[in-house]
Amino acid sequence: MLRKGETICAPATAAGGAIAVIRVSGPESLRICEKIFSPASGRIRLTNQKGYTIVYGEIKDNEEVIDDVLVSVFREPHSYTGEDSVEISCHGSPYIVKKILELLIRGGALAAHPGEFTMRAFMNGKLDLSQAEAVADLVASSSEASHRIAIQQMRGGFSEEIKKLRQELVHFVSLIELELDFGEEDVEFADRRELLKIVSEVRNFSDKLASSFRLGNAIKNGIPVVIAGKPNSGKSTLLNALLKEERAIVSDIPGTTRDFIEDTIIIDGIGYRFIDTAGLRETSDAIEILGIRKTHEKINQAQVILLVDEANDTPEAINRRADYLRGLAGESEKNLLILINKTDLYPEKSREDLMKRIRLKKNESLLFISAKERIGLDELKIRLGEIVEKEKLSSGDVIISNIRHYEALINVSSSLERVEEGLKSGIPEDLIAVDIRQAIHYLGEITGEITSDEILGNIFRNFCIGK
Amino acid sequence: MLRKGETICAPATAAGGAIAVIRVSGPESLRICEKIFSPASGRIRLTNQKGYTIVYGEIKDNEEVIDDVLVSVFREPHSYTGEDSVEISCHGSPYIVKKILELLIRGGALAAHPGEFTMRAFMNGKLDLSQAEAVADLVASSSEASHRIAIQQMRGGFSEEIKKLRQELVHFVSLIELELDFGEEDVEFADRRELLKIVSEVRNFSDKLASSFRLGNAIKNGIPVVIAGKPNSGKSTLLNALLKEERAIVSDIPGTTRDFIEDTIIIDGIGYRFIDTAGLRETSDAIEILGIRKTHEKINQAQVILLVDEANDTPEAINRRADYLRGLAGESEKNLLILINKTDLYPEKSREDLMKRIRLKKNESLLFISAKERIGLDELKIRLGEIVEKEKLSSGDVIISNIRHYEALINVSSSLERVEEGLKSGIPEDLIAVDIRQAIHYLGEITGEITSDEILGNIFRNFCIGK
Repeated sequence: MLRKGETICAPATAAGGAIAVIRVSGPESLRICEKIFSPASGRIRLTNQKGYTIVYGEIKDNEEVIDDVLVSVFREPHSYTGEDSVEISCHGSPYIVKKILELLIRGGALAAHPGEFTMRAFMNGKLDLSQAEAVADLVASSSEASHRIAIQQMRGGFSEEIKKLRQELVHFVSLIELELDFGEEDVEFADRRELLKIVSEVRNFSDKLASSFRLGNAIKNGIPVVIAGKPNSGKSTLLNALLKEERAIVSDIPGTTRDFIEDTIIIDGIGYRFIDTAGLRETSDAIEILGIRKTHEKINQAQVILLVDEANDTPEAINRRADYLRGLAGESEKNLLILINKTDLYPEKSREDLMKRIRLKKNESLLFISAKERIGLDELKIRLGEIVEKEKLSSGDVIISNIRHYEALINVSSSLERVEEGLKSGIPEDLIAVDIRQAIHYLGEITGEITSDEILGNIFRNFCIGK
Repeated sequence: MLRKGETICAPATAAGGAIAVIRVSGPESLRICEKIFSPASGRIRLTNQKGYTIVYGEIKDNEEVIDDVLVSVFREPHSYTGEDSVEISCHGSPYIVKKILELLIRGGALAAHPGEFTMRAFMNGKLDLSQAEAVADLVASSSEASHRIAIQQMRGGFSEEIKKLRQELVHFVSLIELELDFGEEDVEFADRRELLKIVSEVRNFSDKLASSFRLGNAIKNGIPVVIAGKPNSGKSTLLNALLKEERAIVSDIPGTTRDFIEDTIIIDGIGYRFIDTAGLRETSDAIEILGIRKTHEKINQAQVILLVDEANDTPEAINRRADYLRGLAGESEKNLLILINKTDLYPEKSREDLMKRIRLKKNESLLFISAKERIGLDELKIRLGEIVEKEKLSSGDVIISNIRHYEALINVSSSLERVEEGLKSGIPEDLIAVDIRQAIHYLGEITGEITSDEILGNIFRNFCIGK
């Protein structure tokens, strides 16, 4: 996987624009490009060119001109990858891009693997591993909130803190291991109280960061909002109304069944993933849900449940449906928003009566709307924003969104829990040292101070080509 | 439409790549970018930066970092547009691109219209009009042949020759008009024989260029190849076999009816547009074609007709179908390729018998193939290539592919035809001068020495944003 010493190339832009950019990185970048590039000014030699400069000229296949291009030159270590690099900016024709790549490969470059440029940046110490992962998130970010998490992480985010805490643990474990070396002599280099303090500090840090994952992940993929309600209560009218207002990026999430239609709508910079359930069907007194097991799953994953009722429903029926959803949600307290829809059709209906007789619990609220007439939608958006804000408060400033980091932090925390218990109950030093070493290992995995080919392979496989 | 003095901005790359490039051009480019850009090195000021250099830093919305970017600086007149320009290379997130554009617009830039960068390049004398048009063709080029026509045109192509010839005509018409000024005095500044010579030279040039349009247009849009044959003779198997072999760019051409399926396949660098007709149906002795009028049209536009027959067809039936197609093609001599398909199924059938008894005319040939077993496809591709080569020979080196140029050249030619006739029949000088002026006008329209807002509007409207 590591092809050190090789020069790689790949398109860095998507097909279809006015211009395209081709990236080349590695020790031979300039020499390979020089073979196929004729500068407009005869005096210029690409291999003599300083970094952060641009040369105008032609890409040629022998005598045939392929395109007029701009060649940007970067010199190691002052480039994205830390290596000598070149970016060729050409006209955005798929034929031209293919042709230039062919010429580069013929000249000695290799076609880059997905993420290989960023992996080189990591290998050359330009980015740590969590920063490298953030690059992929940044490219994929489509909302303000997901962008903010990615850029914070790419710019160091929690890496510095993790490195510092890890270093302190390394210090302590070295002292303990020194004690072990002295064997019988009963010396104590490591101050146990100090150690307990730092262990608890790292645990708190890990726990807090780990607990931000739920929100971080939701922001990255869109906050999951389940829409429930009896058939024809106006669920899809509501979705369409929100979609129209936001002129939003809407996507069909692949892999969803026909029963669950997902739409992502960006509201005030936050992506919400609306999941339309098949509907609650009432048979005589019982409520039956279509595709019960799947709906149950969806409700479990949801951060918010919207129950859409109609203004002429009885409070009893609404309470019954709300209870049913609460039952499906089980122990976890969900943010339930009961929406009384079609208020335009039934203006005579007493809101006060409904407000009095619909029972609400903690984290629940009631809204009167008309999806068709777009009444109450602003209020709904504000409520959704408040729910996210509330979750943010409990998460603190730094939010993680990467499941690999989450799993490592959980492991850090449980290793350190054992250390704390061990210190309190006087367990032998060598066992304590093992647990500290484990915590150190997992912290190092996040930033990449500890890596394996397998970890790297998993991470960079998901990058796009040219990144 | 001309927004001189304004600074414009637009994304220059398609959404979805690892990186995205945003273009800014106009007198305020550097000052506007400076407002939102913090160089990594505090000593650098964007507005002091020399052309053809790159600065690394951050795009910020007040204190919030939007992205780490590279900013390429170009100074007028040494830029694509001829104006001060900046290219911002950022991570390829749609959110980031949108945000940076918003910041630029807030800073005083205008969102660029389609083709506005190239229009500025034209206005500032960096490109003539036919070169500017070639930029759009170049971006759209998807085969080697269409690329070659576009780049030839972008790099001057016939522009220089047209400008030279036009200048000579201007010279003569001035002399004639001088004579007219002298009125009664019967002086003759313009040598009539010289004039006739140059007029005929320009006419030949225009005619030759105009006659290359058929091929140029075909290469640009794909050489039209109609596939005919009775149902189940293997037409779609043949298409699929060709498609697979070439791993080609295939596109559904919009606007085609369900009866005519078009696939573009690139073979040896040339795009062929295969048009699948509904099939020739034989009822007793008569041949009936489904959607006769449309098929007739398609055959008329086609450069090549492939008639797919089966190896167990009788020579009589094949001749009958070929005759029928020849009848539809009418006067125009078409390149007819009769393909005897399914040779794998009927190996015992005598090829010699068929070869003897199938009548071929000029520009026609017979091939034995098996689309299913991929036998004879290389031969077919060679024949297709030969047909294009033959057309190229009659076109000369320079090929035009733009209908606007074609129409202008036809007009040049007919104006000059009148001049020639006038000179020979002694028509009054002032009438001759009018026709020469018209030829000069049409020549000037091609290169853009003569333009109108309408012409410019029509041309640049079809460009993409950011070009």
